Amino acid sequence: MIFSSLEFNNEEPIYKQIEKYIKNMIDNKLIAGNGKLPATRELGRILGVSRNSVITAYENLESEGVIYTIKGKGTFVTPIEINEEEKWNIPWNDKLNEYGRLANELDIVKSEIPWEKGIISFKSISPDGELFNIDDFKKSFLNRISMEEHKILNYGYAKGYKPLIDYLLKYMQNKGIDTKGKDILITNGFTEALEMMLSAFTKPGDSIICENPTHNTAIKIMKAQGLNIIGVSMNEDGLCLEELKEKLKLEKVKFGYLIPSYHNPTGLVMKGEKRHEVYRLFKESNVPIIEDGFNEELLYNSTHLSPIASFDTGGSGVVYLSSFSKILFPGMRIGWILGEKNLIDLLQSVKRCKNIHTSFLDQGILYEYLSEGYFDKNIKKVKKIYKEKYKFALKCIKKYINPKILWGEGGLHIYVGLDNINSRELLERCYKKKVIFMPGDIFSIDNASDNAFRLGLSRVNLEEIEKGIKIIGETITEMRRENEIALE
Amino acid sequence: MIFSSLEFNNEEPIYKQIEKYIKNMIDNKLIAGNGKLPATRELGRILGVSRNSVITAYENLESEGVIYTIKGKGTFVTPIEINEEEKWNIPWNDKLNEYGRLANELDIVKSEIPWEKGIISFKSISPDGELFNIDDFKKSFLNRISMEEHKILNYGYAKGYKPLIDYLLKYMQNKGIDTKGKDILITNGFTEALEMMLSAFTKPGDSIICENPTHNTAIKIMKAQGLNIIGVSMNEDGLCLEELKEKLKLEKVKFGYLIPSYHNPTGLVMKGEKRHEVYRLFKESNVPIIEDGFNEELLYNSTHLSPIASFDTGGSGVVYLSSFSKILFPGMRIGWILGEKNLIDLLQSVKRCKNIHTSFLDQGILYEYLSEGYFDKNIKKVKKIYKEKYKFALKCIKKYINPKILWGEGGLHIYVGLDNINSRELLERCYKKKVIFMPGDIFSIDNASDNAFRLGLSRVNLEEIEKGIKIIGETITEMRRENEIALE
Repeated sequence: MIFSSLEFNNEEPIYKQIEKYIKNMIDNKLIAGNGKLPATRELGRILGVSRNSVITAYENLESEGVIYTIKGKGTFVTPIEINEEEKWNIPWNDKLNEYGRLANELDIVKSEIPWEKGIISFKSISPDGELFNIDDFKKSFLNRISMEEHKILNYGYAKGYKPLIDYLLKYMQNKGIDTKGKDILITNGFTEALEMMLSAFTKPGDSIICENPTHNTAIKIMKAQGLNIIGVSMNEDGLCLEELKEKLKLEKVKFGYLIPSYHNPTGLVMKGEKRHEVYRLFKESNVPIIEDGFNEELLYNSTHLSPIASFDTGGSGVVYLSSFSKILFPGMRIGWILGEKNLIDLLQSVKRCKNIHTSFLDQGILYEYLSEGYFDKNIKKVKKIYKEKYKFALKCIKKYINPKILWGEGGLHIYVGLDNINSRELLERCYKKKVIFMPGDIFSIDNASDNAFRLGLSRVNLEEIEKGIKIIGETITEMRRENEIALE
Repeated sequence: MIFSSLEFNNEEPIYKQIEKYIKNMIDNKLIAGNGKLPATRELGRILGVSRNSVITAYENLESEGVIYTIKGKGTFVTPIEINEEEKWNIPWNDKLNEYGRLANELDIVKSEIPWEKGIISFKSISPDGELFNIDDFKKSFLNRISMEEHKILNYGYAKGYKPLIDYLLKYMQNKGIDTKGKDILITNGFTEALEMMLSAFTKPGDSIICENPTHNTAIKIMKAQGLNIIGVSMNEDGLCLEELKEKLKLEKVKFGYLIPSYHNPTGLVMKGEKRHEVYRLFKESNVPIIEDGFNEELLYNSTHLSPIASFDTGGSGVVYLSSFSKILFPGMRIGWILGEKNLIDLLQSVKRCKNIHTSFLDQGILYEYLSEGYFDKNIKKVKKIYKEKYKFALKCIKKYINPKILWGEGGLHIYVGLDNINSRELLERCYKKKVIFMPGDIFSIDNASDNAFRLGLSRVNLEEIEKGIKIIGETITEMRRENEIALE
């Protein structure tokens, strides 16, 4: 109690001693500005003195401006203005370490074009929330909480919620992976899964082999950790195997990071034979593969292809990362790592060091949603709608753009390559006409891919798709004409 | 489609070509072991051949043991046993970097006494889930989701859910903090809050000044990041100021990490005058303070004391971390960082690099729960029950143990110090009698505090408290007697 150290002497009047004591507390900042003082009756009782002494003390302090009263609310401390030179100023920017500096420098959110009303944005590949099945989601919450009650709201295990892990192990088996000797750790989305692997197993200066272009968040995480990214070119057949062979011979290659299922940003799907050959090459070089199972669920044109991890029966060379975040509730941030049991055991301790575990409530709801078949029910509807957009967008691109490269076998985006048209300049011009997209350099490990861009389709409707692509096409025609004139 | 590259020639019978093709796929692991083949009718249709050709091919393959049929289920690939030497084995333990190695080595979960049925455990200070108000929690979920619908299930912002941030800013104002120029970032619990600050602003070899003993998870995170921990002793008046002055003069002190509100493990509360003095000393040395607001809400005996951050009006020298995890739903993992606006802006990019953002669903539910007043309603009940346990435990300790040190002004634990009794040995003996607790060395930066231990009270009832403390007391008496005999 803040007044507990006040001991009265017999020399001064009580009200004077109370005044002094309160002033002293304010000087020592033991009561903050606008802090509330006890009511006069209460303070009298606490101090064992008459209420009148307290009233006199308060009146004197108020006339000095030290405290103020609001009728019906109480008595408060007048805030003291602090001089600029008295303020404690830490220049946090200068204090960032290399990781913190890079995390900021590479954060495209901080440099990107701000969204404005009326803009047609092809930037996002996050799912269309209108397609979420909120009723089934609510049911999942209510069922799970009535089953688990407080248990799901208290501390859980670093590895994750057991029913969800078991469900996902079966789910991975159905993708053709032999899960014997393997286990799963639940993470806060794909981003944390990759971040954990890199932060526990790499040192600055280590090399990672990737497709080039590749997922921009992965590039950011790798660069922020000080890693050296070695890109392998992509063409319409996907990853260039000859180049991969050469680059696997380089020194200090710690991992391969690959997105075979539905490559971001190109939308290419790695063929089965190639998956096996890629596995063989990495195994030969003894370089473990981090496989990003990105968006497998949204393939439209091919039946399912087994992940690269399916070749690693009984082995520990392929670590598979995934999430449902491009279909189901990314706001909950749930992803997973499938790997050898011992690896998962090591990662458990890393997880405990970072944030103990992923929300058990969210894991429980997701488990219920999946195991009740709501996902299977919903995915059919979602696929149909996204596929319609995708086909329509393809038609519009052919009609308005006449691209050199047109990649993408499904999912939520299409990759477009042009001749001699700088996609940053294209973006700037389109932005003036209220259309934006992701320029290719964002996905390039060396900021190249100047002539390509990604169109995300999840957050635009058919009308916007046509209108937006038409504007992009007209702008390209404009630029092509300017190029021709410049060449004449 | 897996059969799409099969092109028939005119030289061999169709069934033979199908056989060869399937064998080849299996050899190349394009169909996994136990993978399902299409039904004969379906495959005939896909390949544009007669169903009989497919049946013949399947029969031949089955007689060779290459595939097998389960009646009513379908035809499957016989799994191939892989030789041990063919398996790709990555020795993940050897691949860990220093951080990964330390995260594992310092993980007490991996070395601790396993829980068994019938054990009275004073280890935990996680809340008693039976005290959670599940009905109000459900209401919070349903209200928030009907308000926000899919928006709260889609991607959100790195900083957090705005209504929750605004609520917490007011909450911090009520603790006496002037939040002008300050902002809040939502984290996955306190653990992530501390981990983020350290991973963005420290380098291995940097020093951190802490109370000694201190929170074991904080010690782990700091050590795993390669930091040098400088301890300042605690006595019954709390932190020793003379020692603090000396240690602030040491080189490369990056931060102070302090738990003034309700210190873990000692349970001591830092007095207001001392808080101000500690603030002054750190400011004088220009060493920023990371203040851990641990369990402020559970103080029983004192009225509220302003956090150290409340002295830093207009400044940027104190970063305040907290969570409700010791009272509200730790399974959801929600904590926060309060700091200068610019610091929070820098940390946003770090958060995006680690896991994009904390679950918006969980933040939304927590916001609803808090703003509806359910927390205030619940905390009174919770305090009453915990206080009863706490008072009863104090009585039992005095009755059965006769300790040298008996600290703890509230919260969920009591700190007990003994003369000449090694608490690890005490634990081993008590474990045989089915009573366990947290030995003091876990909280010591140099694994000292040999004669102290922490009793967590949240997960034991009154009967268990008396029974458990009686057993601990009897064991201590035993050990004291042995010591006396040894001395004679």
